[in-house]
Amino acid sequence: MSVASTPVIDPVALTRDLIRRPSVTPADEGAMDVLERALTGLGFHCRRMRFENIENLYARRGTASPNLCFAGHTDVVPTGSTEAWSSGPFEAEVRDGVLYGRGAVDMKGGIAAWVAAVSHILAEGEVPGSLSFLITGDEEGPALHGTKRVVETLMAEGEVIDACVVGEPSSSRVLGDMIKVGRRGSLNTWITVQGKQGHVAYPDRAANPAPVMAKLLARLAAHVLDEGYPEFPPSNLEITTIDIGNPATNIIPAEARARLNIRFNPTHTGDELIAWLNAMAGEAQAASGLQISLEHLCSGNAFLTEPGPFVTAVQDAVEAATGRRPEASTTGGTSDARFIRVLCPVLELGLVGQTMHQIDERAPVAEIEALAEVYRAVIRTFFDRAYDSRSSASRAPPNIAAKATRK
Amino acid sequence: MSVASTPVIDPVALTRDLIRRPSVTPADEGAMDVLERALTGLGFHCRRMRFENIENLYARRGTASPNLCFAGHTDVVPTGSTEAWSSGPFEAEVRDGVLYGRGAVDMKGGIAAWVAAVSHILAEGEVPGSLSFLITGDEEGPALHGTKRVVETLMAEGEVIDACVVGEPSSSRVLGDMIKVGRRGSLNTWITVQGKQGHVAYPDRAANPAPVMAKLLARLAAHVLDEGYPEFPPSNLEITTIDIGNPATNIIPAEARARLNIRFNPTHTGDELIAWLNAMAGEAQAASGLQISLEHLCSGNAFLTEPGPFVTAVQDAVEAATGRRPEASTTGGTSDARFIRVLCPVLELGLVGQTMHQIDERAPVAEIEALAEVYRAVIRTFFDRAYDSRSSASRAPPNIAAKATRK
Ligand SMILES: [Zn+2]
Ligand SMILES: [Zn+2]
Repeated sequence: MSVASTPVIDPVALTRDLIRRPSVTPADEGAMDVLERALTGLGFHCRRMRFENIENLYARRGTASPNLCFAGHTDVVPTGSTEAWSSGPFEAEVRDGVLYGRGAVDMKGGIAAWVAAVSHILAEGEVPGSLSFLITGDEEGPALHGTKRVVETLMAEGEVIDACVVGEPSSSRVLGDMIKVGRRGSLNTWITVQGKQGHVAYPDRAANPAPVMAKLLARLAAHVLDEGYPEFPPSNLEITTIDIGNPATNIIPAEARARLNIRFNPTHTGDELIAWLNAMAGEAQAASGLQISLEHLCSGNAFLTEPGPFVTAVQDAVEAATGRRPEASTTGGTSDARFIRVLCPVLELGLVGQTMHQIDERAPVAEIEALAEVYRAVIRTFFDRAYDSRSSASRAPPNIAAKATRK
Repeated sequence: MSVASTPVIDPVALTRDLIRRPSVTPADEGAMDVLERALTGLGFHCRRMRFENIENLYARRGTASPNLCFAGHTDVVPTGSTEAWSSGPFEAEVRDGVLYGRGAVDMKGGIAAWVAAVSHILAEGEVPGSLSFLITGDEEGPALHGTKRVVETLMAEGEVIDACVVGEPSSSRVLGDMIKVGRRGSLNTWITVQGKQGHVAYPDRAANPAPVMAKLLARLAAHVLDEGYPEFPPSNLEITTIDIGNPATNIIPAEARARLNIRFNPTHTGDELIAWLNAMAGEAQAASGLQISLEHLCSGNAFLTEPGPFVTAVQDAVEAATGRRPEASTTGGTSDARFIRVLCPVLELGLVGQTMHQIDERAPVAEIEALAEVYRAVIRTFFDRAYDSRSSASRAPPNIAAKATRK
């Protein structure tokens, strides 16, 4: 195996370069350029995709199958009060072996670690397949012009990705203790009950929306959506606010508003939950005679990358690199993995997420370096098994890409 | 019967004098002086009672029994936007036979009409008993230093009042179509459910107060308090507001607040309703494990001046003066009659209330004059029957003062 002429990249130095670009969604501030330069240096063909005001990048090295993709985002959440930080959030200061800065954990550190891992792999020789990066600048924002549109474009072009690792900070307490193999779906619903204002002394001339809302919400909250789903907790409905805002003790209010959020496992789809909520509201409307209107926003259905060769390969690689076998979990909020699942099996593996989105977001330098080692093991294991699979069977493409998801 | 030397008073002129004193609670602005001068001129012994910053007046003419009292208030509600008025709210302008001004209906017109009625009665001779006025400057405000304290003072002194007419605008559509013989009680309750804030994706680490509040409110609203009480509509609970004010779709809120108002008939007392609400909240707290706290403010129990000689005398007088027999009603909000009920039978009789508390509050000049005639008939009928009663039976004091109230 010949030694390639590509440079070896230091993951911490690259993380710091990326942090110094204050790419708070939707701003890019040169972050994507930093990444593109590094990947071009490693022989990647870089393709920038700008949708509206958002920078996105799809980079691929090689044309052979299988194609292992790394997905992530260069944008970061706002800093909050910069005075509250112990050093500037975009200074990327290292103190006592810890790198401080917005995006250190979520997820410039993850991107840099995968780039470093790739540089080490390539320094040892070519991989039997392709490596690719799918990077967006719109993950922390509305996510309308990011991964979703890149995936749509790639699918329309027939681009094949066989498996994908998303670099979100999936680890819970120590590096490699958890990978995320799925996410619950999330549905927000806004409820408005329209009544008729009046004086409390003359209830016959008014129609109070408050008890109608209270009864509807109590029914919704008492409903058991399901008892769980393999790998998932039970679906859960939370009333996140109820608001009337009536200052007068003697006035029956005209309108009541509320909002709920449902985090749901693959037992349900967003459409089915919306139909259920509409039906419940319809019953309440019929019973009360008051107009009830609902608005829904489903930010993603539940999905699960089922146990199979890809998940096992990643778990084996993490165990080999860290000594601990990661739990395959579906907890937590949504991520761009929900857009990638239509392409291929996808899972999330990255740093410990404890300080993400917080003041003084930070990652130990040793943890970033260790993540690069973990990623290197993942890439190596993936291609080894793809090669084995291809050798032992005559089938192509390799079946390492298991069925992506249920439903 | 000798003609007395007291002046005859024009009710419209006196109403205008009173309106020109902008006595928005707690201000007096000389309104009480205007009234005191008129009453002194009619031979009343006037006693000013100042409690805190509030002017009150108890005036009596004569020492004999029975003592017929007129109660009312010289204070008025704020004007709202003075630009919205078709003439200045304190100018007391008469246009097309209608007197415009704050307090025209509620209730400077009523006070002036009773003073005018008394002046006419006295011009014809003495009454077989006493006439009195119980007037406050704190009816539209908190009512803490007004009628309540005057009544307490009079009771402590052993002052006897045998019956009382409150000059609130009791008429509904035309003068004399309605008298108020009681009022429902009113209870406001503030409810706070204390939960624990958290992320919707991790409901086990949070405790959502919203469904606990919704369920409690739904139970309270569904409860039938009673089916009514003689002369009263059923007691009624209204949820007047629910407020959480959580802007974040992914956050479980820490606290939910709500408020309710119960208007209740004599089936209930405020204390009993408070005990019921506390018990319901206690059950909800036990079931949910969340802390639920309640604050209550009962602004008066229900009361009823039962059918009897006094109510009948007033109804007969109104029918004689207007040709229509007034309905004895218990609808509407609270009034100072709730403080006077402990002294004697009390009812409300006054102008048509339609424009009270509104922009362009107004009363037709003819209606104020007609009310003075109605009041004159009431005073005359009251003393005629007290005299008859005293003559036909040997009992004293006269039983015209029927039992005041149930419970
Ligand atoms: Zn992220
Ligand atoms: Zn009034």
